[in-house]
Amino acid sequence: MAHALRLAERGLGNVWPNPAVGCILVNKGRVVGRGWTQPGGRPHAEIVALSQAGSRARGAAAYVTLEPCAHHGRTAPCAEALVRAGITRVVTALTDPDPRVAGRGHAILRDAGIEVTESVRATEARMIQAGFLLRITEGRPFLTLKLAASFDGRIATADGESQWITGAEARRHVHGLRMKHDAIMVGGATARADRPSLNVRGMGAVQQPVRIIASATEIPDLPREGPNFGPLWHISGTADEMMKDIAGRGITRVFCEGGGQLAASLLRGGLVDQIVGYTAGLAIGAEGLPAIGALELMRLADGPRFQLVESRRIGGDLFHRWRRD
Amino acid sequence: MAHALRLAERGLGNVWPNPAVGCILVNKGRVVGRGWTQPGGRPHAEIVALSQAGSRARGAAAYVTLEPCAHHGRTAPCAEALVRAGITRVVTALTDPDPRVAGRGHAILRDAGIEVTESVRATEARMIQAGFLLRITEGRPFLTLKLAASFDGRIATADGESQWITGAEARRHVHGLRMKHDAIMVGGATARADRPSLNVRGMGAVQQPVRIIASATEIPDLPREGPNFGPLWHISGTADEMMKDIAGRGITRVFCEGGGQLAASLLRGGLVDQIVGYTAGLAIGAEGLPAIGALELMRLADGPRFQLVESRRIGGDLFHRWRRD
Repeated sequence: MAHALRLAERGLGNVWPNPAVGCILVNKGRVVGRGWTQPGGRPHAEIVALSQAGSRARGAAAYVTLEPCAHHGRTAPCAEALVRAGITRVVTALTDPDPRVAGRGHAILRDAGIEVTESVRATEARMIQAGFLLRITEGRPFLTLKLAASFDGRIATADGESQWITGAEARRHVHGLRMKHDAIMVGGATARADRPSLNVRGMGAVQQPVRIIASATEIPDLPREGPNFGPLWHISGTADEMMKDIAGRGITRVFCEGGGQLAASLLRGGLVDQIVGYTAGLAIGAEGLPAIGALELMRLADGPRFQLVESRRIGGDLFHRWRRD
Repeated sequence: MAHALRLAERGLGNVWPNPAVGCILVNKGRVVGRGWTQPGGRPHAEIVALSQAGSRARGAAAYVTLEPCAHHGRTAPCAEALVRAGITRVVTALTDPDPRVAGRGHAILRDAGIEVTESVRATEARMIQAGFLLRITEGRPFLTLKLAASFDGRIATADGESQWITGAEARRHVHGLRMKHDAIMVGGATARADRPSLNVRGMGAVQQPVRIIASATEIPDLPREGPNFGPLWHISGTADEMMKDIAGRGITRVFCEGGGQLAASLLRGGLVDQIVGYTAGLAIGAEGLPAIGALELMRLADGPRFQLVESRRIGGDLFHRWRRD
């Protein structure tokens, strides 16, 4: 299952509105098929693995990071494909909360006499599939907030100068993270001040993420959609409304790159699932632009809390990642 | 010499105005004496090591992290003591910049026919003895700035609530660092708002650091000097003047714990040698009190730059240490 989870991660950012799933087929102790959800969401991981295995799928065990689908959508149900291929055992990490599946995939397998083991490495699988799960269960995407700031938490000088606070290695790392999200979002003030490209560069040929500008007023004239730029969406409303809107359009993972006002409204709304920080060895001082705007806390205990997941040096900067408490 | 450097560190915070020195005596491949500068600054490391070695010092090599002293101060010169003990080889890391020594220690040894090797592990030794060296060469102490803040760089809410942003493990770690400095300094506003204890707790019996309040106006009524509290000094002036004043009184290492205005004036003056950050998994928002006050930067490139030395988790917080660029 650990192997299948690593395969699942390959689909992150490329498969919305579908979940990023990984699948491994093992026959007599040998891996005979490996698959992950393909760009655009299909074929599904199971179908890729089955086609790789061919006749060696007969009698094999399948390790899948999510319950195989049971509904006739754009593809035939994977549960039925596993049965037809002669799989004798299926191990899954999670039940699919999609009401069209929700246990029916497991039931199809069991009804066909296949031995099914559920909830293997469920915690890890939940982390990887958090975007898909949140979209189905709460109607909002998984949200990563990026803070690239001086060590006193500033993202620009009072005059708005912000290039470059963090180094080239950190900026390259950001492109790797953008690639793993379905959409990149910034607030209107940031879009107008920085005219950010909001695309993935230097990572080879990739599916470009959707560009989302959250702004109640007009947005700048950014490059139109093409091979190097994803679709451009202009949304507005409360933080809650915007997240519902985004999830309603199929987005499962959003990477928010500021600015401070948008970051604050997302934190106030309890909508931030993960924070990635890049801290530069630089002080800007209190006149600088804050990474997070006003939170209107009454007491310190009301502040949004996060747990440290990892930290390490990237170039000359300190990278740190936090998960919602 | 690596061993001698580790011994030298034991004296940090306890030996001002003297340097914290380490000394190892090796005779026929065996360590026959180990010493480090004792609390209050004497006996010196060499004397401690020689008295431990006794007659086994004859024919031994001495590894000392600083040139042995040549002047008759409160103690007789260590260079002469090494000669008298029959040491045949001396390896040192640094030349003592004190004009009363400055090569004369090495000369005494060589004149006595001792083989002297200089500048071994000089960079490491310079780090450890930075406070003493800066005091002698620039008339100012080595200054560590502590920033314990939320991940958006805030040290309190708008109302001043600041207990506890970082966790118990981080606070304990701070006491370990206080112990390694000669003095703890805070600004007047912080002293009045928090009435901080500015002492070392939970580390056993230690020499309490000097408490320094940097304030142009009156300072609060803090506990008087005693077994649990170091001397209390009230100083004022420009950042430069205050650092000169502190060094003039013999202090080699200062640990500044805020607040934001004092931190900013020290950074503006180019007086901060090291920054230790404790970052909590908490956002406070833009209304919160900034860890660093106004720096009056004209351009981003003018901001004070620091190099990341280390980072790691301490309890639930992220610890990071930076050295002046």
